[in-house]
Amino acid sequence: VADGLTRADAEALDAADPLAPLRSRFVVDDGGPVYVDGNSLGRLPHATAERMAAFAEEWGSRLVTGWPDWIELPRAVGDVLAEHVLGARPGEVLVCDSVTVNLFKLAGAVLDAEAGPLVGLAGDFPTDRYVLEGLARAHGVDLRLVDRGELAAAARDARLTVVSKVDYRSGEVLPDDLPGLVLWDLSHAAGAIELDLRGSGAQLAVGCTYKYLNGGPGAPAFLYVREDLQERLRSPIQGWFSQKDQFAMGPRYEPAAGIDRFLAGTPSIVDLVAVRSGAELVAEAGMPAIAAKTRALTGLFVALHDAWLAPLGFALASPRDAAARGGHVSLAHPDGWRVCRALIERANVVPDFRRPDVVRFGFPALYTRFTDVFEAAERTRDLVASGAHLDVQAAPMRVT
Amino acid sequence: VADGLTRADAEALDAADPLAPLRSRFVVDDGGPVYVDGNSLGRLPHATAERMAAFAEEWGSRLVTGWPDWIELPRAVGDVLAEHVLGARPGEVLVCDSVTVNLFKLAGAVLDAEAGPLVGLAGDFPTDRYVLEGLARAHGVDLRLVDRGELAAAARDARLTVVSKVDYRSGEVLPDDLPGLVLWDLSHAAGAIELDLRGSGAQLAVGCTYKYLNGGPGAPAFLYVREDLQERLRSPIQGWFSQKDQFAMGPRYEPAAGIDRFLAGTPSIVDLVAVRSGAELVAEAGMPAIAAKTRALTGLFVALHDAWLAPLGFALASPRDAAARGGHVSLAHPDGWRVCRALIERANVVPDFRRPDVVRFGFPALYTRFTDVFEAAERTRDLVASGAHLDVQAAPMRVT
Repeated sequence: VADGLTRADAEALDAADPLAPLRSRFVVDDGGPVYVDGNSLGRLPHATAERMAAFAEEWGSRLVTGWPDWIELPRAVGDVLAEHVLGARPGEVLVCDSVTVNLFKLAGAVLDAEAGPLVGLAGDFPTDRYVLEGLARAHGVDLRLVDRGELAAAARDARLTVVSKVDYRSGEVLPDDLPGLVLWDLSHAAGAIELDLRGSGAQLAVGCTYKYLNGGPGAPAFLYVREDLQERLRSPIQGWFSQKDQFAMGPRYEPAAGIDRFLAGTPSIVDLVAVRSGAELVAEAGMPAIAAKTRALTGLFVALHDAWLAPLGFALASPRDAAARGGHVSLAHPDGWRVCRALIERANVVPDFRRPDVVRFGFPALYTRFTDVFEAAERTRDLVASGAHLDVQAAPMRVT
Repeated sequence: VADGLTRADAEALDAADPLAPLRSRFVVDDGGPVYVDGNSLGRLPHATAERMAAFAEEWGSRLVTGWPDWIELPRAVGDVLAEHVLGARPGEVLVCDSVTVNLFKLAGAVLDAEAGPLVGLAGDFPTDRYVLEGLARAHGVDLRLVDRGELAAAARDARLTVVSKVDYRSGEVLPDDLPGLVLWDLSHAAGAIELDLRGSGAQLAVGCTYKYLNGGPGAPAFLYVREDLQERLRSPIQGWFSQKDQFAMGPRYEPAAGIDRFLAGTPSIVDLVAVRSGAELVAEAGMPAIAAKTRALTGLFVALHDAWLAPLGFALASPRDAAARGGHVSLAHPDGWRVCRALIERANVVPDFRRPDVVRFGFPALYTRFTDVFEAAERTRDLVASGAHLDVQAAPMRVT
């Protein structure tokens, strides 16, 4: 069917899209590029700009007397994510620190409680692998970084498996039923696919808020610890925000009850205000509608790839089954780096590149139109068919 | 002399103050409270509100293409602090994460390199003590939390001593010449007193940007590692921002050269924009002028204490020698908690309270007037002389 797909078809899909009105809630320059890198950095919601300005006023006027309200935000914003994005319960999610630090805290807490082999994926996102490598060395335990096909078997024998729910390169959704104790990195999943942490039996998770949750560059991450595990784990970073009766400032550390024990230092409030604002847009749309549109958007791109791009040397590097796919589609191409640069520099399309040869196209449902998908595929086709991408200098960096 | 001090004298000091014009650069409600808690949370610079709004626009329009500039900010803002606040060299300071996390990274790096006893102050700020307690347990080393009088002797035998340069309760400035390897917590020092990390031989430091540097509630902290130590230390949190050739995303962790190896995850950019804005105001005023005014402000308050407050049961809980004092003055009072609450609720003065009996009055030089000092002392005197503070309910919390 894709062979016959026209711009009019994409326009008809936009006209029928119940989420289409949400695009106007984001800052979008309609003369700007076709932005298909929201999986790296999400767009700015208009409401977020307003809330950040209002927060500045609040800081200026309330000063230190604002803290009794602000101090609740890591948990309050976590509760919004729990209910609307993650399928977790109130009191199971915090927003604080970075994915890296949260991963360190949770994986470190498990190792403190019991040593044993750590398992990860050899191709997983770097920070996950690097954090595990450091923890394994510090704790004197084995780290097994395995290939996708070995994962389930390795997880069975592991003390802890750390793995991305949606692979950052391929966009593959990993199945929930990995054996053993699993710490999920939901960075490329949260806000893209439906998650039901409680229903799926997930025990530990971390994730990013600046991709599909539109929290802004470097916005703080979230962490999830299922309620029954909280009392059994202690964060290795014993910060004062994780202390029981924090302002007693007592002589000995005693972890707070509940999820608060996984806080560390003072959280940034303007960041939390921005994350809440982004999360509320997701809540308004609802994850079922977002996930359905995501599948439709990525499905359209896969169809256009098959029709137009495969003959030009592209290969689909993401699952063909929509249910097994996150919010982005990766295409491998021998000249992938030059294709990506030429799309940005000459075709006004912004995807991103992952070594050695993958161009990633991300389609966040809150603001991506079917016509954007169509444009991205059409311009990629026209660029590569013309050979203009070959004019771009080869990658200045060593491609590993 | 203080006995005869009048409001007119304070007004004359303001008139002669070369930093007086800087007050207009901050959001100040002149009908609002006398704010003497900038040592807890600094005021909002007008420029910061503008820069945060401009940054939001930049995020909205540049999207992911902004990252090549933004990614430099932890080091670029660190360089501003290095030059204008800390007396360090370019490439020795980063702004990232919280004081807690930075303390964990640097103290943990030392312990990874060589185990041995850790030393801290029994009365130091909680997060410092708690982090050390966790690290000591994880590394199986002794933690000695000693009293002030034992500190120098204990430091001599320590693998690492972690201590605040300016005590958060008393405001005492600790001398530079502690023996052994010292990690300074500069949270109450940076922006209040002149620091010369290079000249004083300091090797490691962390500190806060939301007090005298006016970065906003929960703004990221800084860390300092003297250049010659950087290659010998590895952060225990092996995040991707600390990786050599980060975007190669290679299979093994290899720490970046230089100060970057002490980064962890993705830094918040709006936070860094705010910290830079605050730091630039400090740079404009210059630390010599700020430190001189700080001594004059706190000196005036001590004089007024002697004249008016000591007879009412207050005792100076800060050094009398201005050179040994940071930017705040602490007064002990048997009804300290009620005095603090009554000042806030009935006298429109905002100090803060530290258990068991200390009221802290902070005087950041960039926006505090000598007449503010006069008002704070006068209203405290009138409140306590009238006995109105006794109408406030006793502390609802257990005072330890």
